[in-house]
Amino acid sequence: PLTVDWDAGHYDTGGFEHYLLKEISDQPESVARTLRGRLDDRFNIAHLGGLNLDARETRAFRRVKIIGCGSAYYAGQIGAQLIEELARIPADAEPASEFRYRSPVVEHDTLYVAVSQSGETYDTLAAVQELKRKGGRVLGVVNAVGSAIAREVDGGVYLHAGPEVSVASTKAFTSTAVAFALMALHFGRIHDLSPADGRRIVQGLRKLPDQIQEIVKQGDAIEALARKYATSPGMMFVGRVRGYPVAREGAQKLKEISYVHAEAYPASELKHGPLALIGPEMPTVAVVPDDELLDKNLTTLGEIRARGGKVLMVGHRVPDGGLAEDVIVVPKNEVELDPILLGIPLQLLAYHAAVALERDVDKPRNLAKSVTVE
Amino acid sequence: PLTVDWDAGHYDTGGFEHYLLKEISDQPESVARTLRGRLDDRFNIAHLGGLNLDARETRAFRRVKIIGCGSAYYAGQIGAQLIEELARIPADAEPASEFRYRSPVVEHDTLYVAVSQSGETYDTLAAVQELKRKGGRVLGVVNAVGSAIAREVDGGVYLHAGPEVSVASTKAFTSTAVAFALMALHFGRIHDLSPADGRRIVQGLRKLPDQIQEIVKQGDAIEALARKYATSPGMMFVGRVRGYPVAREGAQKLKEISYVHAEAYPASELKHGPLALIGPEMPTVAVVPDDELLDKNLTTLGEIRARGGKVLMVGHRVPDGGLAEDVIVVPKNEVELDPILLGIPLQLLAYHAAVALERDVDKPRNLAKSVTVE
Repeated sequence: PLTVDWDAGHYDTGGFEHYLLKEISDQPESVARTLRGRLDDRFNIAHLGGLNLDARETRAFRRVKIIGCGSAYYAGQIGAQLIEELARIPADAEPASEFRYRSPVVEHDTLYVAVSQSGETYDTLAAVQELKRKGGRVLGVVNAVGSAIAREVDGGVYLHAGPEVSVASTKAFTSTAVAFALMALHFGRIHDLSPADGRRIVQGLRKLPDQIQEIVKQGDAIEALARKYATSPGMMFVGRVRGYPVAREGAQKLKEISYVHAEAYPASELKHGPLALIGPEMPTVAVVPDDELLDKNLTTLGEIRARGGKVLMVGHRVPDGGLAEDVIVVPKNEVELDPILLGIPLQLLAYHAAVALERDVDKPRNLAKSVTVE
Repeated sequence: PLTVDWDAGHYDTGGFEHYLLKEISDQPESVARTLRGRLDDRFNIAHLGGLNLDARETRAFRRVKIIGCGSAYYAGQIGAQLIEELARIPADAEPASEFRYRSPVVEHDTLYVAVSQSGETYDTLAAVQELKRKGGRVLGVVNAVGSAIAREVDGGVYLHAGPEVSVASTKAFTSTAVAFALMALHFGRIHDLSPADGRRIVQGLRKLPDQIQEIVKQGDAIEALARKYATSPGMMFVGRVRGYPVAREGAQKLKEISYVHAEAYPASELKHGPLALIGPEMPTVAVVPDDELLDKNLTTLGEIRARGGKVLMVGHRVPDGGLAEDVIVVPKNEVELDPILLGIPLQLLAYHAAVALERDVDKPRNLAKSVTVE
């Protein structure tokens, strides 16, 4: 296929030590670009004309299925949660390759959404082509304009995140989550989301760039934590519901660039198996938003601490009782949008861990930027 | 809640060193009990009167959602694959706690299935109660007769696997997968599964007990492999589509009783991140059935070997070209039923690894047999 990916040779790091740090730091601007021209304060809606779906067509879909690979899949999981929560349309995400090869039932009243930064990910493209062949309606959430997936789909949302050079995705991941928040708002205000809730989400989205900037400014403190945890032989990342895909992407980032064996698990599933691994050599990164599940999450931290496990918590407050050895406090937004912000410190954590371990940050071993083979 | 679980004190290990080995070795009989009286050669169907669903009600469901915790969830993933494949009803599995707390849309034309060996798992029970409160139709796949979940549901399938004493589930897991195969056959023959395919599945199910016996007889060879791999600091378990839930349960078993940091990943997702971890210190257990995805799986093995990773393959043949350092060959059944058999050697692998590492096999640290708290 035509490769429209950007090449590291064409860009410079703009004074940063690595492209990855530049791209993490660029997120206040890249998120602002994803939002630009798409928020409407009169009707408290998102304008996404590129979806090519009118309101009646939108109401006819009973389900949303999101497909992607790697970080695009995890961003899709955030998206599914946003869509089900704001629009009350059942939604889920699945790895594109698993979806494609399991010969799924393709339904006329399911809206399919393919996610890919490059728009050239082979498994995702092949899944889109299979869906189209069977008459499925497919949207794209893509960064690279004019890419293969962008050309195949029936409509979609461009991220406008700008070129992403480093192999590990950061700003494209965040912009994908933001694009899904726009889509969830759009679908929600066509379904049953109230004008007041629509306004709440519109205002929350507008706050994101400044809040991301506040997190990026915590880089030095996060660097110190990264040095502390980088030498762990393995790490667990846990979260519940909105926090779980954030934990998955956080673990993925650490795996990719620092080669630390980081595994993500739903916090509630720990006691059904992985708790056997927890001890002083296996620290846990816990994503703990200040939402209705806060108490359940704090109980989980207590269980981890009781087994001698260290906890690095990413959340909105320092918990009482020494439940976390370290805490990264992130600015609070609306509960539905918090996952977008909670992911940013985990990018910085992975980056600084990789630097501390002297990894090849922008070109980790064994990995390619866009996977254009099966 | 009333606890109807069995207690280790009431049973003996029947000459085996541990309950776990007894329960693994008991599977030819426990699976035979799950099947007993439920296969019909005249119509090539499964008799599951306990579902309390007539054929017209069955046809009205457009979707199946399976919920459970830990191994019950992974068995549910095998179940979802079987139902979608044989009955062509879209089906998926989700951890009960995540489902319960994300405030899911409950649909009148979705059939919900709750899975729990003990029938007392708190998160699963609470999810069942929430579903019932909203008018959802819920079935149970449960081992313990008269347990809380068995009493709450509208119908279901009892496993008849007999008491399971060891904390790590083995025979209940396998019988759950068999119960889902029966359910998938039942739904399939009400929908569009042909009599010939029904007969193929009925005959395949009948073969399972003897084939499991053949695998159990390989215990000594698997013990030698377990000793070889048990000292790895971490392991990856991979599989595609039918093989993926098998890999997940295999990793879970190893985690639970040997405390080795084993992580499962869809084989196709390796190149989107975890491949960065692969090297000589991180061996991979690959579940590679002889199905239509064999070539893709062998390509993945080649990628792992090219990065210096050791591969222990569980499948139906020894691959050419030294793609796997070690191979456990399992008897072949129908492609849809192969996952049931492929899981058995991974139970033995985890058991012997735990023994080699001198773990408390039947009562692993930090874990309880049935989790009756949140």
